[in-house]
Parts: sequence; C-alpha cells; structure tokens
Amino acid sequence: MQYQRFVIQPEQLQNHIIELNREQSHYLRRVLRLSPGDRAVALTGKGKAWIVELTPDQAKIVHPITLNTELPITITLLVAIPKQGVDDIIRCCTELGVSTIVPVLSERTLPKPSQNKLTRWQRIAEEAAEQSERAIVPSIITPMKLNEALMNYGSGHKYCYFCTARHDVPSLTEILSAQEWRKQDSIVIATGCEGGWSETELQQAQQANFQLVSLGNRILRAVTAPITATSLIAGFAQMRIKSVDESWKGGEKEKE
Amino acid sequence: MQYQRFVIQPEQLQNHIIELNREQSHYLRRVLRLSPGDRAVALTGKGKAWIVELTPDQAKIVHPITLNTELPITITLLVAIPKQGVDDIIRCCTELGVSTIVPVLSERTLPKPSQNKLTRWQRIAEEAAEQSERAIVPSIITPMKLNEALMNYGSGHKYCYFCTARHDVPSLTEILSAQEWRKQDSIVIATGCEGGWSETELQQAQQANFQLVSLGNRILRAVTAPITATSLIAGFAQMRIKSVDESWKGGEKEKE
Repeated sequence: MQYQRFVIQPEQLQNHIIELNREQSHYLRRVLRLSPGDRAVALTGKGKAWIVELTPDQAKIVHPITLNTELPITITLLVAIPKQGVDDIIRCCTELGVSTIVPVLSERTLPKPSQNKLTRWQRIAEEAAEQSERAIVPSIITPMKLNEALMNYGSGHKYCYFCTARHDVPSLTEILSAQEWRKQDSIVIATGCEGGWSETELQQAQQANFQLVSLGNRILRAVTAPITATSLIAGFAQMRIKSVDESWKGGEKEKE
Repeated sequence: MQYQRFVIQPEQLQNHIIELNREQSHYLRRVLRLSPGDRAVALTGKGKAWIVELTPDQAKIVHPITLNTELPITITLLVAIPKQGVDDIIRCCTELGVSTIVPVLSERTLPKPSQNKLTRWQRIAEEAAEQSERAIVPSIITPMKLNEALMNYGSGHKYCYFCTARHDVPSLTEILSAQEWRKQDSIVIATGCEGGWSETELQQAQQANFQLVSLGNRILRAVTAPITATSLIAGFAQMRIKSVDESWKGGEKEKE
C-alpha cells in the first residue's frame, strides 16, 4: 500500500505524537483528502520515516519504516542559474536522487536570485522528495559565485566533474564507467547556463580539481544538462554498488 | 564559428538557391537579426546541411557541411501522454538524440490530443533540433493506442524496453551495460504516464517482445522518466560505439 507523504520538522515530534501545523493540516485534509483515522507517512527529510495515523490536529506514530530509495552515494550539483527552468532542474534532479543543489553565479548568469526564490526552490525539493518517495530532502544552498563553489566543493570530494560542450574531452559516461564505486562516495558535478562557461571559468575549474567532461555531441540546454548528468551518475551508482551489495533493494520495508 | 540554423523543405531548394518562405525570412531577420550577406546553416532535418549566404528573400548555398552530432543508433520513444509536460519531453529528448517519438494512449492517459497539438509538437522538435545542432529532426508520430504501438514497434527491433516502477526488474543501466552495441542498432523504449501502467499493459508489453526495466529506486514523474531513459541510452551508445570507431567525433566539418 502506497501512503501519502509529508515532511515534518524535528520539533513537531514529541512522545510519539506529531503536532501538525496549519499548512500540513490543510494539505492532508483538503489536498490529499485524508480523514482522521487514515494513515500516512511522516518523514524528517533526513532519513527517518514513520507510518502515522491522523487525528484532527495531530499524527500518532504507528511504527517506524525504512525507506530504501536513496542512492548509495551523494551527488552535489553545482548549477549555473539559467534564465528559465530552475524549478524543473530542482524537481527532476530531486527525483533522481541528488543530495545537494548549489545554485551558482557564473559570468553568464543573471544577478543573484531573491530570498523568495530560495524558499520556493526548497519547497519544490520537499514536494519532489515526497512524490518520488525519497527519505532525504535535498538541501538547496544559498547561491554563491562559481569560484567560491569550486573552492568549497573541489577539495574534500574525490570525484569532481565539470560539464562543458564543444571541447574534445571524455564523456561523463566513459568517466563513470571507468570510475571505482564505493558506498558513500561523494560526487560533485557542475553544469553551465546558456552560453556555457567562459575560458577563465574552465581554467578555474581545472585548477580546483574538477575534471572536464562532455555530455555528448549535441548542445544541451541549461535545463537538460543537469538532468542528464544526474541520470547517468544515479544509474551507474545504483548498478555498480548494487553488484557488490545485493541487499540493496528498492521499496518500503518495516523495520525489524 | 557557430552559425544560426534553420530547417528547410526539399522543394525550397533548386539550383543551389533556397527560396525562403515568409516565416523563415521573419525568423532570420527579426528573431536572429541576420542581414543580407550574413551566413547561416540550412538543414533538411534528414541529414543534409549547407552553409548559406542570405539575400533578402533567398539563401545561396556556399558549401555542404557534415554534422557529426547524431547518435550512432536510433532511439524510438513510446511515451504515454502525461497531463502536463509533453513539450518538455519532446524538447529534452530531441536534444538528447531521439529519432522518433510515438505519443501513446494508455489506460491512464487523457483522450487523444488534437491535430493542433501534434503540429505544435513537431515544431518544438524542429526548434530543439536546430538549437542542439542536430542533423535530423525527430518525427513525431500520430498518437496511437499502446497495443498498436507495441505491435508496430515490438517486432523488427532487436532491443525493446518497457520502463516500470515498483517491480523487481533489472535496471535499464544494467541492461544497457550488458547489451551488445552495433552501429545503426535500433532501440525502442516505452515510459508510462501518471499512475504507471496497468497489469494488463505490462503483460501486453512482455508478449510483444518488450523487456521490463527499472529506472531506479525512486518514483520518477512521467516527464522525468523519458528524459532519464534517453540520457542513459544516448550515453551508452556514444561510449560503446565510439570505442569501436574512434573516428566518431562531434562538431561541424566541411566536406572534403
């Protein structure tokens, strides 16, 4: 049975009771059309989840569940903010299993987005995580300049890739195919906006430990590139790490 | 130098002169802001392309060019028409290299789309092919029932995959990884709409020579699934066939 899902804040849970806020009550009753006595899944968005039974203003925990829908690795996506389509990038890449999205200001991006937009993006990530049945809601980081992002994420991560078009560089598929895969590896990948990266930015990336990679012979839009990159990384991660750990299976299980 | 691109009909070309229609003249002059004397790329959308020089109402062929941006295989996408997002599917999958898109009416899709929509979808495919620098504009087939599509595309194609969630089936990545790859192979892949396929549809697919595959442990939306599937197939095709044919390189070259 597939239950409806909602994300809670840690302070809402005390003594096996979740105090619902107004927005959640509205969502559960009016949008999802659930009634007192119905069951749902409450998530922390940080890995924990429970089957709950609804009362008019609360949700009582019935039992914890394990969600085996997360990737065995973490993916951090640095995405140069395109004019249009950030919502689609966040929604699709959340479904595909990304852990962290860092909106990046590059030479060819528009000015810094407003705080409202950030709140909206985090909300989209939450909804997409619920709908795709993830255990983790990805973090959307406050936008930063490319160079800062390269410094912050280029060191301390073993695999850092920088997608670029029109350069004779190896394809991401080739690189992933040759990569060693271990559980809990972390992969950082950057994609550009309309017009791509400048030569200076490409140099900065290489200096910061990022390997240049291609996403194929065609020119992808700024919205398509991160979805394609995340699809490939998620596909390889699940295949390669599954083969060393056959216990990795999808779905929803009761904890034993 | 990257020239602007436009697709022509075969009857527009005679004696090295392309007669521009009103829409093309408007597009080249007003939208792309090109002037007489400027150069552009004219495409048939079926593989041929030329550098042309613009005059007020015509385009004179300067020389043919070879576009090496097509995949070494063909991908036919059967896509159960979702409520929203068909435009995004066509745009992204065209960029990724799909050859044919067959909109499919399944048990859980809406009624048959209007002729207007079909014209609109073909126009989106054309624009996306121009922008992604493809040589081929994908065909958008008149929508048909799933069973008809399974019959038409299940026989005569070596590799037929049917994406489904919540079933314990091999992942598409695993299958592609184990697949033999040859130039000009044709792959058919089907993705579902909201609510997925019915049990009857899954059985029909298997009877029609389609192998059930998964796109990972998370539940993807109807828009994300075909983009992910196409990303994976395109990535593997280019990697595997490149390794037996190192002459396969991207970019735009003059014919010798």
